[in-house]
Order: sequence, then C-alpha cells, then structure tokens
Amino acid sequence: MRTPPLSPTSYSFSSPITLLPFSHSLTVPPPPTFSLSFPVVVSRTPGTNCVKSSTLRLQATSSSSPSPMIEKETPETQKPPTFLRETDGSTSSSTNSVRARFEKMIREAQDSVCSAIETVDGGGKFKEDIWSRPGGGGGISRVLQDGAVWEKAGVNVSVVYGVMPPEAYRAAKPTENGDLKPGPVPFFAAGISSVLHPKNPFAPTLHFNYRYFETDAPKDAQGAPRQWWFGGGTDLTPAYIFEEDVKHFHMVQKRACDKFNSDFYPQFKKWCDDYFYIKHRGERRGLGGIFFDDLNAYDQEMLLSFATECANSVIPAYIPIIERRKDMPFTDRHKAWQQLRRGRYVEFNLVYDRGTTFGLKTGGRIESILVSLPLTARWEYDHQPEEGTEEWKLLDACINPKEWI
Amino acid sequence: MRTPPLSPTSYSFSSPITLLPFSHSLTVPPPPTFSLSFPVVVSRTPGTNCVKSSTLRLQATSSSSPSPMIEKETPETQKPPTFLRETDGSTSSSTNSVRARFEKMIREAQDSVCSAIETVDGGGKFKEDIWSRPGGGGGISRVLQDGAVWEKAGVNVSVVYGVMPPEAYRAAKPTENGDLKPGPVPFFAAGISSVLHPKNPFAPTLHFNYRYFETDAPKDAQGAPRQWWFGGGTDLTPAYIFEEDVKHFHMVQKRACDKFNSDFYPQFKKWCDDYFYIKHRGERRGLGGIFFDDLNAYDQEMLLSFATECANSVIPAYIPIIERRKDMPFTDRHKAWQQLRRGRYVEFNLVYDRGTTFGLKTGGRIESILVSLPLTARWEYDHQPEEGTEEWKLLDACINPKEWI
Repeated sequence: MRTPPLSPTSYSFSSPITLLPFSHSLTVPPPPTFSLSFPVVVSRTPGTNCVKSSTLRLQATSSSSPSPMIEKETPETQKPPTFLRETDGSTSSSTNSVRARFEKMIREAQDSVCSAIETVDGGGKFKEDIWSRPGGGGGISRVLQDGAVWEKAGVNVSVVYGVMPPEAYRAAKPTENGDLKPGPVPFFAAGISSVLHPKNPFAPTLHFNYRYFETDAPKDAQGAPRQWWFGGGTDLTPAYIFEEDVKHFHMVQKRACDKFNSDFYPQFKKWCDDYFYIKHRGERRGLGGIFFDDLNAYDQEMLLSFATECANSVIPAYIPIIERRKDMPFTDRHKAWQQLRRGRYVEFNLVYDRGTTFGLKTGGRIESILVSLPLTARWEYDHQPEEGTEEWKLLDACINPKEWI
Repeated sequence: MRTPPLSPTSYSFSSPITLLPFSHSLTVPPPPTFSLSFPVVVSRTPGTNCVKSSTLRLQATSSSSPSPMIEKETPETQKPPTFLRETDGSTSSSTNSVRARFEKMIREAQDSVCSAIETVDGGGKFKEDIWSRPGGGGGISRVLQDGAVWEKAGVNVSVVYGVMPPEAYRAAKPTENGDLKPGPVPFFAAGISSVLHPKNPFAPTLHFNYRYFETDAPKDAQGAPRQWWFGGGTDLTPAYIFEEDVKHFHMVQKRACDKFNSDFYPQFKKWCDDYFYIKHRGERRGLGGIFFDDLNAYDQEMLLSFATECANSVIPAYIPIIERRKDMPFTDRHKAWQQLRRGRYVEFNLVYDRGTTFGLKTGGRIESILVSLPLTARWEYDHQPEEGTEEWKLLDACINPKEWI
C-alpha cells in the first residue's frame, strides 16, 4: 500500500515556459520544448492512446535515451545567496552576469511583493518552501492561503539548469555541408511567477511572470552562438469592471513600457489579449495587461532593465486597486459570478496555459504548478448573464478586448 | 460589440469519443479522429504556437478542404421518433438495424435514468434541449441543476453523422498494388453520456457512457468492408469509501458482464482503472467500475445486448447507494474534502478525458461538453490527508486501485 506522497518542496514556472513548435515564426531560436531537468514522465497514461504532440516529441527525444535525466529536488532549510552553479565560473555566475542580476532581481521582487501582500492582507502569512537540485538550480515557493484579503496567493522564484534537444536550437542548424548534428544544448532559465486570488468579488485576480533564458553553445559545436531571451507579463482578471481600476492598471503597464520603447505597450497589450484566450469559450480569461515572449531583438541590458521595471510595477499597479475593493460589501450573486469566472481561470490554466500544461506533462511538482488555480470555482450549466448587467459587461469585455487608455 | 452568444441547443459526447493515433495497437480500425460534423475550428489560438497533435491533423485534413464542413445544430421543439437519416434506407435505418436499435436503447435509458433521478431527488427537474442537424442526426440534452439531492446531473443522447479521413480507416489501406487512396469514410455514431454530481459528500458521483460506431465503405471503394465498434463504461467517484457501496456497485457491473463473458469484468475493470488516471497526480479520479472501447471482436448482436445490459444496470448500481447516503449528516470538513475531489474531477476532465478535450478542440457545444464539470470545486495548496483518516483511505484507493469483489 503506497502512502499518499509527502511533499518535497519543488519548483515550477506556474506560467509560461514557452512550448513552441518548430514552425514558430520568429527568427530567434525557440526556447527548449521539453528537456528541462523536471522529472520527465515518458510513459503514456495506461489505457490511453491519446498522445499530444509534445509528448510525442518527448518520446522521440527519449528513444535515444530511454531514461531522461531526472534530478529530484531537495528541500532546503536556508536560502542560499544564489541558486547559480559555482561551476558557471566568473563570466556567467559573477555578480555582474545577466543571469546573476536577473536572479537577484526576481528574488528582490518576490520579497517586496510578498511583503506588500502580507501588509495589505493584515492576517495571512506566506508559507515558504526552499529547494535545490544537485546539479545546480533551485527555488523559493511562497503561498499564502485563506488570508483576510486573499484566498490564495502564490509567489514563486526558480532557477533551472537543463538540456534542450539540439533540434530546438536553431542557431545550430546544419552547416553548409549539411552534416552538423550538434549534441544537446545546455540552458539556464530563471523566473518569478505569481497568481493572487482575492476573496472579495470586486477585487481582481492578478497574475505576473518574468523569466530569463540562456543557452550555452551545443557541447560539440563550441563556436555556435549563445542565445538568450526574456519573457513575461502582468495581467488583471476581475469579475466586475471598475473602469478606474482597469485604466490605472493598464496605465502603469504602459508607463513601464514607454520608458523603454513606445511600441512595447501596444504590442504587448495585444499579445496579452491573444495569449490569455480561452478558445473554446471565444473569450479572454480577463482584461489583459502586457505579455511578451522570446524577446531578444533588443539590447540585452535594456531588456533586463525593462523586465526589472515590469516586476517593480506589480505593486503600484495592483495594490491600490485591492485597497479600494477589498472591503466592499457584496451579495451572493456577486460571489457566484466571481466563482464562475474562477471556473474560466481553471479552464484557461488547465487547457491552454503553456507552463501549466508543460508542467503536467513533464512531471513538475503538481502543488507548485497548480497553486495558480483558485481556492474555489464554479460551473453552472448554460449560465448567460442578462444583457446590460455588470456581469454581461465583464463578459463582453472578455469577448471583445478594449483599449483601456 | 458582440453580444454574449445565445445558446443553441447542441450535442456532445461529454465522454469518450475516442481520439486514437494511428499507432493504436488494436487490430480494428480506430474510430474517426476528427471529422465529425462538429463545428471544426482550424485556426490556432491567436498568439499561441502550442499546437496539439489532433489540431495538427485537423490542419492536415483541412489543407485540401480549407473550410471543413460545419453543420450548425438547430434547436427543435419536439422529439422526433428517430434521429436517423431517412436516406439510410431500409437496411440501415429500419427498426431492425443495429443503429436503430441502439438509438432506441439509449433513448429509453435516458428516459429511465432521468425518471429515476427525478424521483429520488424529489425536487429538481431536468431541463431538456432537443436539436438536430440538417444532414441528419441530432440529440437530446437533459440537465438537472441545484436539485435537492444532486447539484448537477446531465444525461445526453446524440446521433451523429460525419466523415472520417481515409487514413483513419484501416480496412481501406493500400491494396497490393499500393495505389488505393480511398476517399473520406462516412460514419455514424450514437451514444448516451451522463455525469451525476450529488450534494451530500457521502453520496458518490456517477459517470456512464455507452456508444455505438459504424463506418460505411469509403465512397470510392465500395467493396471495402463496413466497420463497427461499441464503447462505454460506468464508474463511481465517491469522496468517502463505504465498502458496501463500492462492492455493490462493482458487483452489479460484474453481474452485467458475466451474463456475456466471464473475461469482461476483470478486463474492463482494469481498463477503467487505467483510463480514469490523473497522470500528474498519480491517482485515479475515483474507484472505477468498467470501461471498454473499440469493441468489435465479438458477435455484434451480443455486444448490443451487452451495452443494453450495462445501460440498464445504471439505476440498480447507483440509486440504492444514493438512497443510503443522500441524507447523511456531514460537517464542513466532509464538504471541503468532497470539493477537493471535485477539483480532481475537473483536472481529469479538462486535461485527459478524450471526449472533453476533443470537444474543446473541435468546437463542440461547450455547455454540453462541460456539463460534466461539477457545480463547485476547490484547490488547496499542498493538501495532504493525515494517514489513517477516511480522506487518506479514499486517496490511497485512488492511488492503488483495489479489487472490490
């Protein structure tokens, strides 16, 4: 008789680790599709012959290595000063490397966001899990559950070392003689990921995630270029629209973007509306914000500053809204509608979110991946808000994304 | 501004329409993978490059016909005597055809199950939606919501005519000269599908689904054989184990099976445990029952009788359990655990269930597909039942499937 498993502390991006097929239209190499140092489960579900494409690729990858490397995470009692490998040497793990500065940034952002949440909540405290992996990397997961203001708030940071299949590394395509078959490509990924679900139906859910990605050259093609990308975003999911809230939220995103490039806000606002699309409903899960991925067509230092600015904008974008809404009186009808929208959140995350679906397929730590799900959700058969109601207005804005500023 | 959509009545198998890749190991031809007369959505989610395999195949199929046939369902006010096509002619749509007798059987089963549910509920009434498609086929969807005993109960029957890509039709593989490329294969599918979620945490959820599938010969290979299959199952998902309930439930399944073949129960019991597996949790969603698919290696008349026997066993298997549990006193703790298990139900249905994931991808009517989701569900971070508790016992039985009889 197997005991229900204990809970090793662990890591996941609870949001986008990008899962791009090779037909990806950008000219940059796509991030790795699967061979993270997650526990990788290759076997199919017993009795199930429904295999999804990424699983198929996992199988293809694993055919040459039937036991994908699984580095089990180890719980730690103390936070190390860095999760970077010592063997990275002075160039990549020195305090000036982008890796090191990105890790420092996300850990500071985790501290400041958690601190702000606890202060506003006035009751709940984050539970912290620290973990590492033997070959390097690790993370800090923090969850506040059943607080005074938030019913569930998760803020995770992580640093992952892994190996991606060479097919995913576009810069290492066959050379002119067509013979180059480079070996696996080592990569580094670090990110902060957070979902904050308040209790009050007038207080919106917030999600944000910022991540940095680097490859080494393939092991047997040392001359090939390293690659790097930034990704991330911050988006708002209310059950009811307060125009001043949504405008304020989008304005903070726009200001952060405009400091760097006036194209960023309109581009990333649209990308956000496109990404958080619940296709089977024909609606977005919320009212958007900004989202970007595979970003490397700009100066690396500029993008590091941009990601930092975005992460630092989370508190000023969100906390004022929560302060205004957290104590508003509400009825059962408001709560039921919030619960229905939480159901949509579940649908998006389980069916479409790349990070979640990737984590579920590859055997990431489930509790960390699914901390993004709300504490409670609801599905009523054929619920249709009456035209003109506040519920209908929210639904309409999810179906037809608006320009808020 | 688009108005939130009205609700055309519609159809879905809320459970397995089989989605088998061609590597399927059985020797029978797999059921069609995509080209049902569902509204088929070929475009990718905006901004999303994560394409799943069946979508890829849809694209492949659609490359020669860029606008897949979409027959929109039409609401009907009256139930027709049959949803079979008149043009089927006397051999296939006559009252003696397997198609006709299967349709009659599932419509009678729908009536008797709904009647039994309403009687036991004592308060809730099923809301009925009838629909048809211009080219033939249609269905009857019935949902009881917020009753006295059940919080959500859906019982749907449907008859679908469609066309499957020739690649899915194994009997039409290239002949010895290797040249046969048969055209699309017309098919017929009929099924009953039901999920019943009670309110009381000691009263279990029941799911059952029985379906019959037939292909015509490919249009340009008239000599090729027709094919047919049966599929289905009945399974129980309690939040708490009452051994007498689970034994009774499995015993009724076994008795139904044993009338036809003594291998059926052990085979289909295991198949059920394997199918309803939440891979990322390492646990089944419930305590199983029976499940089978692609069944044609037996006499067709025998299998029709077997499916009929199984459908007729739903009431004796389930209602006595509900009668015993529906009024048991319970605490908040019991309710919270039921809600957590409902969360698992949502995870299985949205992530793994073939019928659901197929329906979401192909644009089936969402409300019919997702009627299988519970009214309410819950996700707590890292919830671990204490060893030896009743909650732990249930989880253990989901992790380690037991022989109940």
